[in-house]
Amino acid sequence: MTLIGVLDLASVVIFALTGALAASRAQLDVIGFIFLGCLTAVGGGTVRDVLLNRDVFWMVAPQFLGAATAAAVLVFFTAHLLESRLKALDWLDAMALAVAVPAGVGAALSMGQSWPIVLVMGVVTGCLGGLMRDVVCNEVPLVLKQGELYVTCCFAGSATALLLRQLPAGTLPTGSALIGCGVMVFALRAGSMAFGWRLPVYKSRPPRAKR
Amino acid sequence: MTLIGVLDLASVVIFALTGALAASRAQLDVIGFIFLGCLTAVGGGTVRDVLLNRDVFWMVAPQFLGAATAAAVLVFFTAHLLESRLKALDWLDAMALAVAVPAGVGAALSMGQSWPIVLVMGVVTGCLGGLMRDVVCNEVPLVLKQGELYVTCCFAGSATALLLRQLPAGTLPTGSALIGCGVMVFALRAGSMAFGWRLPVYKSRPPRAKR
Amino acid sequence: MTLIGVLDLASVVIFALTGALAASRAQLDVIGFIFLGCLTAVGGGTVRDVLLNRDVFWMVAPQFLGAATAAAVLVFFTAHLLESRLKALDWLDAMALAVAVPAGVGAALSMGQSWPIVLVMGVVTGCLGGLMRDVVCNEVPLVLKQGELYVTCCFAGSATALLLRQLPAGTLPTGSALIGCGVMVFALRAGSMAFGWRLPVYKSRPPRAKR
Repeated sequence: MTLIGVLDLASVVIFALTGALAASRAQLDVIGFIFLGCLTAVGGGTVRDVLLNRDVFWMVAPQFLGAATAAAVLVFFTAHLLESRLKALDWLDAMALAVAVPAGVGAALSMGQSWPIVLVMGVVTGCLGGLMRDVVCNEVPLVLKQGELYVTCCFAGSATALLLRQLPAGTLPTGSALIGCGVMVFALRAGSMAFGWRLPVYKSRPPRAKR
Repeated sequence: MTLIGVLDLASVVIFALTGALAASRAQLDVIGFIFLGCLTAVGGGTVRDVLLNRDVFWMVAPQFLGAATAAAVLVFFTAHLLESRLKALDWLDAMALAVAVPAGVGAALSMGQSWPIVLVMGVVTGCLGGLMRDVVCNEVPLVLKQGELYVTCCFAGSATALLLRQLPAGTLPTGSALIGCGVMVFALRAGSMAFGWRLPVYKSRPPRAKR
Repeated sequence: MTLIGVLDLASVVIFALTGALAASRAQLDVIGFIFLGCLTAVGGGTVRDVLLNRDVFWMVAPQFLGAATAAAVLVFFTAHLLESRLKALDWLDAMALAVAVPAGVGAALSMGQSWPIVLVMGVVTGCLGGLMRDVVCNEVPLVLKQGELYVTCCFAGSATALLLRQLPAGTLPTGSALIGCGVMVFALRAGSMAFGWRLPVYKSRPPRAKR
């Protein structure tokens, strides 16, 4: 199995756990857990593959869906053991980001895409699965949560991979660049959640009036 | 016209009726009825065709859009005759599911896809049009409505078609398998709405706190 | 640069401004501005290109993303100068519609698509970027705002282009038809916002009950 395959599998399983946790917060039945788990698990990668005009990864290898289904069922039977499902969801989402972003970057790099496209594919693969989960559940999307780094982590991780690849040829294989990318994503996201790291937000006015 | 064509047409028309009923609940103008009707009518099939890398069905035969438009305009002028638009919406949605799921299953079978993909295409074609309608209208998606079978019906219907196809060759043509699929979807959905059939839901905790 | 290229660029920049204004209303950081700006800027055109099975325009020419990013950053530093960000958003959105609809119509015409597909591509390219922005921001989508023309403008503009093309050959090049399309979109939308032009809405009942 290639490194990109491993990253895809890990991100599918971890994102499926977050989708199933969202289903537990909405008190769905086991099929609802599987539906939300699979949607979250393959959402970002599906958009990436459609945009890159590749075969959609889980159509080629439906085992990915099996893995997501197993993860969702596991959560259905064990979520009550967690002390805080919301906290677990946020930390698992951070881990999923840290494997999904390098999976997106790696897929784009392996097709010889230009650097802006590589950047975008990292962000798309990382963010869109979770965004679909939050939109379907009618929650404020994590990507829009004020005062936390989220899209920024994906962006910085993708940029890290691109920079590491610029080092003199031979000193660093692509695999290491992808690992550096994942470490950067997780470090920033974890720092933001645990220590409140953030970028300055736009705040010249009181909050928006409702439309 | 092939059986899949008939199923596609029926699901387009019935889903368009549900989209237009949603538009009547939001008190839109006639173009809004057409927009929501068409979105709901072709949403699921479009995602199916993009994933399967087929030509999108309504691009090949724009008559589908004409049928959806006619259905939406009909609702604009007659919805006030209904006693309960919400109830009509739910029952029409059930009928649309019962034709859309076999349409999705049939399309995947005709391309020789493996069984997990066939299952997914049944669920995708059935659920996504209504999901788009509900997300755009900012309503809690039907797929997430607690304590009702919805995704489960699509899932069980697709599985029924796959099982019927496993019978000794020659005893049952694909067409019958698709009809069995539709009957299963409608029976489960109707039973859930009329008699409260349901799966046990996850309920170890009080409802989620708002994020 | 072709006329379609100019229209695409203009619609990307103006839609990016609207996405960034939505980000300012949600008080995001600068990366949030860029994310929402780019999503709004390329959302409609991306769906158009995927449906038409063309290469996605910003994958071929990533400069479009650069332009959207620059527009979003500009808004981050200057939005506080605006008297009413909501009003600016609505008027910019009207301008973006007026260039995005002809861009969609032109792309479909250049591929020799039939008239129903041309109509749909005008509406899709015009409406979907803004719809994604509003769904992600959890606002009532502009397309659903009661008593304002929105989808209607896209529809009428696309129809105008198709009618102008029916004039005796040679009297009017495609470019003029696209300009007529844009003028029609903006005139209707502006008239709706400034003078309250509207179509009769469906209103036989009190507003919907919550599901």
